[in-house]
Amino acid sequence: MANSPGAFTEAQVISRLREIFATTDPRVEIGIGDDAAVVAGTYKRQVMTTDMAVEGVHFRTDWSTAFEIGRKVTAANAADILAMGATPHYLLIAVALTGSEDIKWIEDLAKGIKFEADLAGLQVIGGDLSRSEKIVISMSAIGHCDSPVARKGAKVGDGVYLSSLTGWSAAGLAIMESKLISATDSHAVAVREYKNPTIDYKFDATRATSMCDVSDALVIQAKQMAESSKVAFKFDLSKIQSCSEFVELESLSRAIGMDIWKWIFAGGEDHVLLATGVDLPGILIGEVVVGAGIQNLPTGVETIAWRHF
Amino acid sequence: MANSPGAFTEAQVISRLREIFATTDPRVEIGIGDDAAVVAGTYKRQVMTTDMAVEGVHFRTDWSTAFEIGRKVTAANAADILAMGATPHYLLIAVALTGSEDIKWIEDLAKGIKFEADLAGLQVIGGDLSRSEKIVISMSAIGHCDSPVARKGAKVGDGVYLSSLTGWSAAGLAIMESKLISATDSHAVAVREYKNPTIDYKFDATRATSMCDVSDALVIQAKQMAESSKVAFKFDLSKIQSCSEFVELESLSRAIGMDIWKWIFAGGEDHVLLATGVDLPGILIGEVVVGAGIQNLPTGVETIAWRHF
Repeated sequence: MANSPGAFTEAQVISRLREIFATTDPRVEIGIGDDAAVVAGTYKRQVMTTDMAVEGVHFRTDWSTAFEIGRKVTAANAADILAMGATPHYLLIAVALTGSEDIKWIEDLAKGIKFEADLAGLQVIGGDLSRSEKIVISMSAIGHCDSPVARKGAKVGDGVYLSSLTGWSAAGLAIMESKLISATDSHAVAVREYKNPTIDYKFDATRATSMCDVSDALVIQAKQMAESSKVAFKFDLSKIQSCSEFVELESLSRAIGMDIWKWIFAGGEDHVLLATGVDLPGILIGEVVVGAGIQNLPTGVETIAWRHF
Repeated sequence: MANSPGAFTEAQVISRLREIFATTDPRVEIGIGDDAAVVAGTYKRQVMTTDMAVEGVHFRTDWSTAFEIGRKVTAANAADILAMGATPHYLLIAVALTGSEDIKWIEDLAKGIKFEADLAGLQVIGGDLSRSEKIVISMSAIGHCDSPVARKGAKVGDGVYLSSLTGWSAAGLAIMESKLISATDSHAVAVREYKNPTIDYKFDATRATSMCDVSDALVIQAKQMAESSKVAFKFDLSKIQSCSEFVELESLSRAIGMDIWKWIFAGGEDHVLLATGVDLPGILIGEVVVGAGIQNLPTGVETIAWRHF
């Protein structure tokens, strides 16, 4: 009964995790299994972030497999490192389990983390296992860079770009909630983006003047960047409408009867990159102008405020 | 009603946290408020750890104040850095709140974290706020060192040392559970050590051959160190009995009618340092001998096994 919940020890779980996360990276001098991990020093700037995901809030175990959940939380952390113009390197993982998971579920979670970590270039170097009534996964990612790209730095005259179109994750969530899942391509893409957002690991941010990961709504994070940079972001909806991804997402929004602009501007969890600069790759969605705040929002999106505690 | 639960926005909370965690450390180039923090590079080895605490499992809000909870979780993370012979530097904090906390509680949690972080030399550089049914606090600490002290490395002939006596936290927990709280000094010390374990930040581990933070039971972590080092740890109970802290803890265990040896060997959460070497500071509790495992355990402690999931 080695697979039954509770029929395995913490030592056995850690032993399996050490196998799954084994690394041959010579910079990792001490990995999982000691009080802390030890990695080689670097003269480059260190970039550090943390992100927590809670069962029922950020993921549902009846909607997503353990593998998918592991990927998604890892992606969210990797995206924060990318958003500073940095290269992801190391990952620490703290997980609280309920005690009702079998060892296969835990292994699949680890394999999902490992899969996305490999895409991101992250080495898993340490972790912590706890107990909780709901599953909680908290990660910290560490990367490095020569010169960081902050949220401030956008200049008047810059273009505003998305590495990919936002809204797909919200569309996927809407499909899951409405149980309207069909076998059409755009349905599948949206559900996949909700479960496992595609991170633009290859986005070239060399010339970006400011950048941000769109984990919350685009409208919120554009506002933050504009405020930090003491400029205004003026959206160009016709430019957004002309990108090929928009056409695909729009047909999906019509089929479901939902507002595509709310998905795009207020959806969140896409983990695409929002950047300013001249001639950047990605989708041009507006320009940086003199002023404050954000301009030319689609009707119905202006009222979206901060989340309340 | 700015103090009522839910009557404040995430932006307001983050603004207060930025004030509380403000740092003038020139190595912190970008702190709280961007996608990730950016700190200066260092040629020294980087030491990284993560530790999660869950309401009802690791702390109780009716037993500990927010300030005490903040201190304790910070201390646990700092101790893991110390246990590698490293100097703590940076702290990332992910917190899930239930929504029923008022802003004072959140501020007190932050102030407790800041208080212990100052003792440890940790700068809070970033964080994440989430929702959960129970409060969850997950931290990652980053430090650096020239040469790490691992769990392996204990040599036959070394002494086995504790930086302070273990068992006080378990004693405090027993007092809290039995509601036997009295105004005596040893009661107060035990309850304080349960709520806010004293971390031996000044323990000089320069000559230590192996080291570990006693977060779980001493018996478990001594066994891990002996296994990693391919030696045996032989305890000397008479030496433990001769330390002044033992006398104090023993009078407390007699008054409550509990087994002092279980507190010392199986208690956990003291976050003292267990180290091997010659002429180390702290309390000599045994020696490293040829063999495997741990020897000379007190009666009744042998059977303590791994935690089950």
